[in-house]
Amino acid sequence: MDLPASLLSELAETLGNAVLLDPSERLAYAYDNSRRQALPDAVALPTSAEQVVALVKACRAHRVPVVPRGRGTNTTGAAVPVAGGVVVSFERMDRILQVRPGDRCAVVEPGVLNGDLQAALAPHGLFWPPDPTSAAFSTVGGNLACNAGGPRAVKYGASRDNVLALTAVTGTGEVIHCGTETTKGATGYDLQRLLVGSEGTLALIVQASLRLVPAPTARRALRAIYRDVSSAALAVARLMAQPVTPSMLEFMDGQAVRLAREVGGADLPPEAGALLMIEADGDEAILAHDIDALKRAATGEGLLALDDAADEAARQRLWAARKALSPALRTLAPGKINEDVVVPVSRIPELVGGVQELALACALPIVCFGHAGNGNLHVNLMYDPADELQAARASAAMSQVFALAIRLGGTLSGEHGIGMAKRDFMTEAVDPATLMLMRQIKSVFDPDGILNPGKLLPP
Amino acid sequence: MDLPASLLSELAETLGNAVLLDPSERLAYAYDNSRRQALPDAVALPTSAEQVVALVKACRAHRVPVVPRGRGTNTTGAAVPVAGGVVVSFERMDRILQVRPGDRCAVVEPGVLNGDLQAALAPHGLFWPPDPTSAAFSTVGGNLACNAGGPRAVKYGASRDNVLALTAVTGTGEVIHCGTETTKGATGYDLQRLLVGSEGTLALIVQASLRLVPAPTARRALRAIYRDVSSAALAVARLMAQPVTPSMLEFMDGQAVRLAREVGGADLPPEAGALLMIEADGDEAILAHDIDALKRAATGEGLLALDDAADEAARQRLWAARKALSPALRTLAPGKINEDVVVPVSRIPELVGGVQELALACALPIVCFGHAGNGNLHVNLMYDPADELQAARASAAMSQVFALAIRLGGTLSGEHGIGMAKRDFMTEAVDPATLMLMRQIKSVFDPDGILNPGKLLPP
Repeated sequence: MDLPASLLSELAETLGNAVLLDPSERLAYAYDNSRRQALPDAVALPTSAEQVVALVKACRAHRVPVVPRGRGTNTTGAAVPVAGGVVVSFERMDRILQVRPGDRCAVVEPGVLNGDLQAALAPHGLFWPPDPTSAAFSTVGGNLACNAGGPRAVKYGASRDNVLALTAVTGTGEVIHCGTETTKGATGYDLQRLLVGSEGTLALIVQASLRLVPAPTARRALRAIYRDVSSAALAVARLMAQPVTPSMLEFMDGQAVRLAREVGGADLPPEAGALLMIEADGDEAILAHDIDALKRAATGEGLLALDDAADEAARQRLWAARKALSPALRTLAPGKINEDVVVPVSRIPELVGGVQELALACALPIVCFGHAGNGNLHVNLMYDPADELQAARASAAMSQVFALAIRLGGTLSGEHGIGMAKRDFMTEAVDPATLMLMRQIKSVFDPDGILNPGKLLPP
Repeated sequence: MDLPASLLSELAETLGNAVLLDPSERLAYAYDNSRRQALPDAVALPTSAEQVVALVKACRAHRVPVVPRGRGTNTTGAAVPVAGGVVVSFERMDRILQVRPGDRCAVVEPGVLNGDLQAALAPHGLFWPPDPTSAAFSTVGGNLACNAGGPRAVKYGASRDNVLALTAVTGTGEVIHCGTETTKGATGYDLQRLLVGSEGTLALIVQASLRLVPAPTARRALRAIYRDVSSAALAVARLMAQPVTPSMLEFMDGQAVRLAREVGGADLPPEAGALLMIEADGDEAILAHDIDALKRAATGEGLLALDDAADEAARQRLWAARKALSPALRTLAPGKINEDVVVPVSRIPELVGGVQELALACALPIVCFGHAGNGNLHVNLMYDPADELQAARASAAMSQVFALAIRLGGTLSGEHGIGMAKRDFMTEAVDPATLMLMRQIKSVFDPDGILNPGKLLPP
């Protein structure tokens, strides 16, 4: 669609030349890491909350979609302007406004990169827990919008667990202040955690007060190799039931181990049916104790080998198998559907077993790995997108993976979110009465449905 | 009011004789620990979610208030049926349905006592973090409704931080399922944390899946005495900025220390102007390291004495000063207003200083103590309720305490909630646009306003 001339002049008045209209410039804001694409009608680059308010009000008056955007690293299409309208890129609102070590709090604008924030916090001996793979080039606002997690979440929680207060602009252009900059609060409804993970469909976050955590001074890694997935999953349950919570607890299934060995060249025994990477972090003086506790918990029926990385070089070598995995996947097939279902930890064997049955049934390789301590597995279904029959089988199999995760007491996504990719499955994951409440809540924040239409809630 | 005969017969049909109508029986459900009182028209004692659905639908048809109730230990009037109607006491829905150690999850009915749950979890080496003073006789449902905390929250979080999934009945009698039994989730809007702390105004919780934490095997306490509040507050900031998070970090101001010494007989030096009780918990093998780290952080300008409890008996002796405090308070005056404001940790000195100025100005003693690691202080204003002038001055001073906490970037309540006691102050703590959103969210869950009317949201 073409934007009304009056809206264009209102945007120019508010934002000056920080409105991109040239198609080649808009193209850079048309896609995200889902490989979906849709050209926005305009791109706004605000530098203040006031500008965001003005542009939302202007767009609302014309019923034009407003699509907030960090750096487009998400995998679900949540940042793709599928209904056109104005993309609001927060790249120029990237200031770190305050770091207050005694309060364990940082106040930031939404466009600051996760990695830049971590660098600014390091001299204070603090960090912000969310560590998605994209951390170096994804924004804090985007992390919050998707409730981003990462391997550290098993010990330190995901984005939602590490937010104190948010300032946001609703779909009516109202500024709301949610939460307070305190680690405890019982003053009315908890709106800040409601906004986290809402993928820009309720409000645009313009300022965030983040909960910080003291940085550990050291870390140590273990690599545990098991005969089969069940043995590894039992070890995960043992690891999570004892007092020393690992700072990472990553899982690779038999397929993943085989790939890492045969394609990635990782040093792994051929009889390995599953692998856990286990890390502890903390003060150097207590790491030995923590590693001993983790070793005891990792040990049990089906353990084939347990390697302890004595130094950083050895730690890097142990992680090599995990890092070899993603490039190795591409040797299986040119196309990949990667979904991040989550189940209770005790159901991991059933999830992996069920996925392998599906792989046989659809005659396509499926490789599982991910954040075992949270039951959050990345299910990678490999196929050739040029082969229509394969693509159809892949898509059908992934639907069954979602159904399986839900049947096991889990859900569609642990940390990637819903976006466009999984919204059609929301009716399977959420019962009708609860989904109706979500729709009504959306209407309260955004009565005209202009905020990121076509995402999260099913049609 | 009298309940309509048709409603009474519907309740009888649903609940049989589990409906109390006799005034003397209803009286036991008329009050809570706020000392407010209002007689309900009926008391329902459901044993199933289906009964709760039926009774909410019946009450809704007659526009009769529904007031959920745990054991009435809250301090804000949140459980007092101020508009009459039907109190729903969950005392007969008190089953622990599942404990799954590998998933770190327990599934319970809302009426189970916090203390009974902890006892059931102990053999599994697990606990549920919320530990309000009332834990032995308050319910999990009540803890969730108020977002109850306690001293352990500094390390383990409050109720909202320790819930995975909730099943609840809205004001329209719909059953909703919020969240999943996983420690990570990015599937739609986060409704379970929205329900926590909503004080029964959005929905009645009928089942809760709780996040459990491995129980530490040992703990050790330190008592640090400071010259003044500023020195103690700086120590709190230092303690919170280093990697070993204390499992408790309790503060007493100079008034509290004086009372504990002069009235409670605690062994404390007369020049003590503030006191911190600091605990570490974990494995016996690493406690010595943790206590050393806490000692280093506690040490600084203004420290007068630092006592380490080598064993449990010594630990009990150190805590004696804190335990002597509550009874000693009563020697100051017969009446007490106890509010639990919260501020960022770095603002504790300004809060305590401002409160002492208010105490001078209103010529009434005010004693501050509480959970310093969260900036959550209990401000105890002592007065004689029989003296109308004192009562008026006390009430005015407490309004100014709230205003002070808000001015310092804090808010009205850290863990007690709003209820009736603080709802008039909500307009000071929450801006109009955000409060309007809260009201609209309330209307989504409870369109007829029958759930716990007169609580949390201002008139």
